[in-house]
Amino acid sequence: MDLFYVLLILLVATRAFGEIAEHLGQPSLVGELIAGITLGSVVAKYPSIFPDMVGLEDNRVFASLTDLGMFFLMLFAGIEMQPHKILRYSRGAFIVAVGGMLLPFALGIGLGYLFLPETPLQTAQSLFLGTALAITAVPATVRILMDLGQFDSAVGQTIVSAAVFDDIFSLLFLALLTGLILFGEPPSIADLALLIGKVVLFFAITGVIGLYVFPWGGRFMHVLKAQELEISMVLVGAFFFAVLAELLAMHFIVGAFMAGLYFGQKTIDLKSYNRVKNSISAMTFGFLAPIFFASIGFHLEFSALTEAPVFVTILILIAFLGKIAGAGGAARLAGFSGRDAANIGVGMSPRGAVELVIAGIALKAGLFVTGDGAPTIVNHLFSSVVMMAVVTTVLSPIILKRSFAEKAVDP
Amino acid sequence: MDLFYVLLILLVATRAFGEIAEHLGQPSLVGELIAGITLGSVVAKYPSIFPDMVGLEDNRVFASLTDLGMFFLMLFAGIEMQPHKILRYSRGAFIVAVGGMLLPFALGIGLGYLFLPETPLQTAQSLFLGTALAITAVPATVRILMDLGQFDSAVGQTIVSAAVFDDIFSLLFLALLTGLILFGEPPSIADLALLIGKVVLFFAITGVIGLYVFPWGGRFMHVLKAQELEISMVLVGAFFFAVLAELLAMHFIVGAFMAGLYFGQKTIDLKSYNRVKNSISAMTFGFLAPIFFASIGFHLEFSALTEAPVFVTILILIAFLGKIAGAGGAARLAGFSGRDAANIGVGMSPRGAVELVIAGIALKAGLFVTGDGAPTIVNHLFSSVVMMAVVTTVLSPIILKRSFAEKAVDP
Repeated sequence: MDLFYVLLILLVATRAFGEIAEHLGQPSLVGELIAGITLGSVVAKYPSIFPDMVGLEDNRVFASLTDLGMFFLMLFAGIEMQPHKILRYSRGAFIVAVGGMLLPFALGIGLGYLFLPETPLQTAQSLFLGTALAITAVPATVRILMDLGQFDSAVGQTIVSAAVFDDIFSLLFLALLTGLILFGEPPSIADLALLIGKVVLFFAITGVIGLYVFPWGGRFMHVLKAQELEISMVLVGAFFFAVLAELLAMHFIVGAFMAGLYFGQKTIDLKSYNRVKNSISAMTFGFLAPIFFASIGFHLEFSALTEAPVFVTILILIAFLGKIAGAGGAARLAGFSGRDAANIGVGMSPRGAVELVIAGIALKAGLFVTGDGAPTIVNHLFSSVVMMAVVTTVLSPIILKRSFAEKAVDP
Repeated sequence: MDLFYVLLILLVATRAFGEIAEHLGQPSLVGELIAGITLGSVVAKYPSIFPDMVGLEDNRVFASLTDLGMFFLMLFAGIEMQPHKILRYSRGAFIVAVGGMLLPFALGIGLGYLFLPETPLQTAQSLFLGTALAITAVPATVRILMDLGQFDSAVGQTIVSAAVFDDIFSLLFLALLTGLILFGEPPSIADLALLIGKVVLFFAITGVIGLYVFPWGGRFMHVLKAQELEISMVLVGAFFFAVLAELLAMHFIVGAFMAGLYFGQKTIDLKSYNRVKNSISAMTFGFLAPIFFASIGFHLEFSALTEAPVFVTILILIAFLGKIAGAGGAARLAGFSGRDAANIGVGMSPRGAVELVIAGIALKAGLFVTGDGAPTIVNHLFSSVVMMAVVTTVLSPIILKRSFAEKAVDP
């Protein structure tokens, strides 16, 4: 692949589609996803038009660039989050997270047992469907809320906090599930204790570094001479947290997010803080994030829609209903109004980004044994889950945009 | 390779060594190169310490990141260059470019005929040595001049303009030379005309777009809604110029540089201009450029120093003398003072970055036929050229720093 050619095509397509989306009253993100879907379809159908873009979704250079996009998006989200708000909304967010995880998880298992054929893999496949429905793609929700100007609201902060929580738990559960697939045994108490120990260790280490080393670094920096050191320091912290997260059984996005969270206005002087924030914002929203969202669209295959239409339709419906009833119901219990609770449910629905990671892990672990002999649904399980991930990510912002606008004109 | 781990190690090492260099009174760039050399040596000797970094110099993801570093550095250099200054110094820069290219080229050919064994490849190898000595690595000189605060001076602007000129011509010559190696015939008049036609076409297209489309885009942008659109527009322009440069027989750095050159304060409003410049500066000097300079150090092998010590020493001496006498002498003729002329000669000496590109192309074309039967010098020709590239890039800023400081205290 020719790097600059691919970046040129992707940046032009995503920004143009994003601009069109804005003019149609939709968030840019929707346009960027559709740009990815469109490019992906054109390349699949007419490979000779963009030969450099054939097989892009499997290209390691491209995967690294989209990983960097996810990383910057989560780092920026962490910087934008206000720790005192997280604490204020933490009780509500926790209830929303639990409700928004348990109901979709149960629905996913039920769906698996109803639709998937009885094979030795049926239990694992059903548990995977549950996990796939339990997650909420934090990078996607972050971007949606920012596009809609709702990131700072009570609804927005609750969604992001709950989504981070859901992703951490779903990824941990997935680690146990892949263990089950690979070794054929359910995890022992020792495995569970080890996994929980790792998570506790991650938050302990990042907490100590974030609360003590980051502010010290901010003060220490003024005696240093190197140019553009502020952004290097922030990136070093975030790369370190990302590596630590991967070492301790979590996804790197959790590390990037935590690094941003601890990098606050108290860490360095206001001028440096704003300069770092502006630079990360420009690189994220002007360069890497559009490419990352296009890559989600790129993964879409339409085979599930033609080969297993009933299953994929029900999967998408459950994806919305599970979060709206589960997370929304919990939000109502936590004291949110009916409309805010519904918005929280819809806001928790996008599965974009993280779903592709989860489905990729399950694919590698051998969960989707496909072939001529395999039943149709199993053959298209992976494609169905990807379809659900993309559709929830495209539709949620469109629904939310309308709902927030209606709320604004309510008396 | 684990992306975030490698980025963490590289960013920590380069920024720490850069800071140490600054405290020793040297430019950061020297520290970053030495960080790369040190890491490269440690990894080569103790591969088990950083297993993820073994073979990094051949990793495609890493190569793409360093390409992005080169791209951003050249884009920033273009933005920082002031077109009216280029025009003011263009006569001097042209003379410096010609002098700084012809003398090293002749010396390289002479060196080849004196030292290299008489084989069918001797002529091509000698021409390659001439080309390798004729270039000046623009990305390296840009960074050196910025580190030393001399980018805006008459000396600095002359060096950069002349270096761009030398690189364009050397790369064109290399295209002819690889044709000679691959097809065994010298280029025909038609080949030459085609090559020159491509270059003219490149400057014609970029000129029209830069002078007419860029300012139109700047005005048009205000009716658009998408977030962080300014930086996307600049990147789209630069990616397009980079792709165009590659299509028209030039290196992408020429495209990135030209895009920056046409993106001026007149293109968009001052606030947007400064925001774009700050963001590109932060990403370049705080993230991608240090990693790019470390990658140059990474390529260093010490075998040439032990196996062909006389040859490599003479090569390095000629690298400096050729530019000091050729470019410096021409600068003196163009009216610069003796010290300024010498500084221009030294400033034209770094071969970093671009040399590695040239040597890589020649390596792929089969110019360095090595093996047990081959003479020692030919076996270590590639390694010698890389050694010359790294040494000139490390020493030039150290010499220049001292010379500029002495000039400042001169009465």
